[in-house]
Amino acid sequence: MTLDELSTPALILDRGKLQANLDRMAAAVARHRVPLRPHLKTAKSAAVARLAFGGGTGPITVSTLTEAEYFADHGFDDITLAAALTPAKLDRAGTLARRIRVLTLVTDDVGVAEAIARHVAPFRALVEIDSGERRSGVLADSPALLEVARALGPKLSGVLTHGGHSYLMRDLPSMRRVAEEERSAVVAAATRLRAAGLNSPVVSVGSTPTALHAERLEGVTEVRAGVYMFGDLFQAELGSNTHDQMALTVLSSVIGRRPEEGRVVLDAGALALSKDRSTEKTSHDAGFGLVWDIDGRPSFGRAVIERAYQEHGVVTSDRPASFNELAIGSKVRVAPNHACITAAAYERYFVVDGGREVVAEFDRINGWE
Amino acid sequence: MTLDELSTPALILDRGKLQANLDRMAAAVARHRVPLRPHLKTAKSAAVARLAFGGGTGPITVSTLTEAEYFADHGFDDITLAAALTPAKLDRAGTLARRIRVLTLVTDDVGVAEAIARHVAPFRALVEIDSGERRSGVLADSPALLEVARALGPKLSGVLTHGGHSYLMRDLPSMRRVAEEERSAVVAAATRLRAAGLNSPVVSVGSTPTALHAERLEGVTEVRAGVYMFGDLFQAELGSNTHDQMALTVLSSVIGRRPEEGRVVLDAGALALSKDRSTEKTSHDAGFGLVWDIDGRPSFGRAVIERAYQEHGVVTSDRPASFNELAIGSKVRVAPNHACITAAAYERYFVVDGGREVVAEFDRINGWE
Repeated sequence: MTLDELSTPALILDRGKLQANLDRMAAAVARHRVPLRPHLKTAKSAAVARLAFGGGTGPITVSTLTEAEYFADHGFDDITLAAALTPAKLDRAGTLARRIRVLTLVTDDVGVAEAIARHVAPFRALVEIDSGERRSGVLADSPALLEVARALGPKLSGVLTHGGHSYLMRDLPSMRRVAEEERSAVVAAATRLRAAGLNSPVVSVGSTPTALHAERLEGVTEVRAGVYMFGDLFQAELGSNTHDQMALTVLSSVIGRRPEEGRVVLDAGALALSKDRSTEKTSHDAGFGLVWDIDGRPSFGRAVIERAYQEHGVVTSDRPASFNELAIGSKVRVAPNHACITAAAYERYFVVDGGREVVAEFDRINGWE
Repeated sequence: MTLDELSTPALILDRGKLQANLDRMAAAVARHRVPLRPHLKTAKSAAVARLAFGGGTGPITVSTLTEAEYFADHGFDDITLAAALTPAKLDRAGTLARRIRVLTLVTDDVGVAEAIARHVAPFRALVEIDSGERRSGVLADSPALLEVARALGPKLSGVLTHGGHSYLMRDLPSMRRVAEEERSAVVAAATRLRAAGLNSPVVSVGSTPTALHAERLEGVTEVRAGVYMFGDLFQAELGSNTHDQMALTVLSSVIGRRPEEGRVVLDAGALALSKDRSTEKTSHDAGFGLVWDIDGRPSFGRAVIERAYQEHGVVTSDRPASFNELAIGSKVRVAPNHACITAAAYERYFVVDGGREVVAEFDRINGWE
């Protein structure tokens, strides 16, 4: 089977580019002699996770209990669930914790920490630290830090932060500053815990831009990152990857042509691409995605999905004459704004390796059930 | 089971509101003595489709071949696939056409029309007309209309348009004008076909706002609409439904609280709600969704999802003091900007009927495989 024969829309993953991205992040983190705990919220695929560990398994991060259960089913036995759970989910999490080696939860709330501590399951737990994103987490210098940590009792295993405000930065010095905010916040928190006689073996940081650009990671014991595996147009604007390094695209077919009005229509719309507009606030707004040819080359000028209807994507270009090359049924590859969101519309990856031949299919897990 | 016990995020469908929406549209279209061919692209659920036909089946519209196959499996035998197919999909469509009574395709392209005509399967086909949206379709007065119609040969069954530019309108007179553009374009096209000795028994129009607000439908033989079944915040801005009529919400739990910083955090983020920002360009920007209490009441002021991360939704409100009522684990209902896109993240609906009790589960079909 080749891309020419594949039914569209379909999610395409380039294995060579994926492997290069995995290697590049591994090298970036290895500079600091800190282990990487890859975040599988983007890939949601055991096959991809195994490539991150040279074919084996290793410590991973996930964003939902459903992902955690899926990866446990596929042999991963050291899993950090890096989004807070409510107490109502602890029984389900406990069932999982009993069948793998380590399930680590996070919390920033005293009540949840008490529920984790009380639960019979062998959880470990990290106190979530807010290092500047102002989403979740306690501040490193707040009274809440010690309260939550103490409430966890013997299940306390350390501290974790996500410097997601790195996504708001647009240059390398700012990105490095956020990386240092991540590091210093979580190291300060761990230092406070230890000074109070509490345990903090784990000091966890991570986001793709900060993981790639951190200048120092002293005191950090692990780095988490996820979207680096695939890369996307928004991460390209942050300097995390080039367009050529993007491993994930959506294969789509031309279903309409109005070259005289400067547009073609694809069978990839809002559901196939997502409504993510991350690039809107960057200097290269790509609409709902950038349109490349079937081999992933920018052959149609700067061709963007200007309008996304449920099943239709309307493409315009600064070189509309190139649309003459696109007949009805012609296939293109759409580069997504945000790989994590686009991939979630699909149940599998069709894997290529540079060319058009489909060399493998990788499943993925979606949803929350 | 009640909403209090349900694991979150989960998709909630209120059956009473759904039925009232179905009845309201049926009455709006019946005024014109024109049959409704409901569009199932929003609901993607056989159980919902059956409610639209008083428990039975009837003529329906779908947006993908996957939906068409699913509804055929559930007893629907008159299906219009209202998005253009490439010739590569005709064999798959042909297999379906042979097992139901009527499968109607649409095209605006001579080459595709020829491929449909040549195919052994018993397709019917409509010429897609552009009534002002400038997405797909030929203009009613263009030479292409007769070329495409003739190329379909005996499979020609009429004309179809979608006045999707109604979504750009913000007042009733504009909406009525678009409804009349829809009607007049497609009636003009059918008139031209008949004058040329061609067949046009089907004259099909539709979009939720135009279907509700059309003043006349002379010459039209069917009306298609879909999102009216559920309603959403964007359709509320178009006057298609009130907030109280919205049948679809996302049940979510509070996983973080920072009332002193004016926010709570939900376990419904970009994947659970979609990144759709349809309300952004209306006079009531609802961020990524409006937050109601577990019973669907606006108890927290105007509470909106201001930031949507993959699995986190950050809520702010003009009455942040009301966040005191929200503890960790408290459940809320999030009203979506765009029901069609939000629903696509889920495999099932948990159905309620006014209260909190889950009275049924309805499956739904997603994807393109």
